[in-house]
Amino acid sequence: MIESVRVIGAGRVGSAVTARLAERGVPSSDDAEVVLLCVPDTAIADVARGLAPRHGWIGHTSGATPLEALDPHERRFGLHPLQSFTRVRGAEQLDGAYAAVTAETKEAREVGFELARLLGLQPFVLAEEDRALYHAGAAIASNYLVTLHDAAAEIFEEVGAPPDGLRPLMQGVIDNGFELTGPIARGDWATVERHIEAIRARKPKLEPVYRVLAEATAP
Amino acid sequence: MIESVRVIGAGRVGSAVTARLAERGVPSSDDAEVVLLCVPDTAIADVARGLAPRHGWIGHTSGATPLEALDPHERRFGLHPLQSFTRVRGAEQLDGAYAAVTAETKEAREVGFELARLLGLQPFVLAEEDRALYHAGAAIASNYLVTLHDAAAEIFEEVGAPPDGLRPLMQGVIDNGFELTGPIARGDWATVERHIEAIRARKPKLEPVYRVLAEATAP
Repeated sequence: MIESVRVIGAGRVGSAVTARLAERGVPSSDDAEVVLLCVPDTAIADVARGLAPRHGWIGHTSGATPLEALDPHERRFGLHPLQSFTRVRGAEQLDGAYAAVTAETKEAREVGFELARLLGLQPFVLAEEDRALYHAGAAIASNYLVTLHDAAAEIFEEVGAPPDGLRPLMQGVIDNGFELTGPIARGDWATVERHIEAIRARKPKLEPVYRVLAEATAP
Repeated sequence: MIESVRVIGAGRVGSAVTARLAERGVPSSDDAEVVLLCVPDTAIADVARGLAPRHGWIGHTSGATPLEALDPHERRFGLHPLQSFTRVRGAEQLDGAYAAVTAETKEAREVGFELARLLGLQPFVLAEEDRALYHAGAAIASNYLVTLHDAAAEIFEEVGAPPDGLRPLMQGVIDNGFELTGPIARGDWATVERHIEAIRARKPKLEPVYRVLAEATAP
């Protein structure tokens, strides 16, 4: 059982993780069993090199960064919480989220899994060589969801419709298990063409987004 | 106050609307004050023409279809619930959703607004000439959200990550008010390049989607 964790970093991820560990009564100390780096990706290697050699474990929480950034430490793992964090919320952001654990040994994987569960995350194994593709998938689902929302909001503003109406719509799609409805699901390409004409006439910068997604949606 | 509504159609929208009217105790009859067409877009004109001339109102629930599809009836309106409906849920799908009301007269708009509120929807005005662009915006937010999810799920399957992890991630983005995080928000284009390389190597069909959305997301 992990008895102590030292979190380095107090950004979006570090704040939520620290709050969760406090809730769970897990203490921090300079010689903690696990040091967890919640620092910007570009700072991981520097912070790791700056840490004295240790008997415990060291992990990072970056989806994009390989384990070798933790050199020279060898007892190491990656634990990427598959969640979009904000500073205005706390530990509850971890609840129900999954976590990608990358490890080079069985023991390291067990530590990563145990820490994930301690944080309230559902761990799964991610191979180092799959990291970039995995992280691209996570970016598509999360970052580009923001892009879709903002594109739709821009259109709604253009026609005087309330952008606030998009949230219950998008929530409904999630609640319905991502079932496809609408013109493409019905094979109604005439409506798709009218959409493209309207976008070209009034929001031409959005035409490539609409068009590429229509093609990707078509069965 | 609307005393009676006859719903024609028992698909995704019609079922939810009928269930809500039953909850509200609003009766149906052949000479109801309002006839609401919840039929496929392609059937609206035929169904409307087949209805005897009437003193009451007639409306449709299509986002894509102009009011003239309701010819020859003149007391008419459009009421498009901005929601993605499924048959496996009921009236609660209407709660909190918005509705686009299209009307040619003040009286028609008032009827559309009143019916929307009776259904638990938050109405707003949509001009006929803005319909195609509005509907394109709704499709971007809802249909293409499914596309993003499915693209990410395909990638997750490729790397052995659980597609179930996408739902809490996407829910988190909505709960956080669509705040952009991730590599593009940080200006980390090296990570974006690694994503593109990984997609090109293993899921090349998804490269255009990733690329166009990256461009649309960049500030």
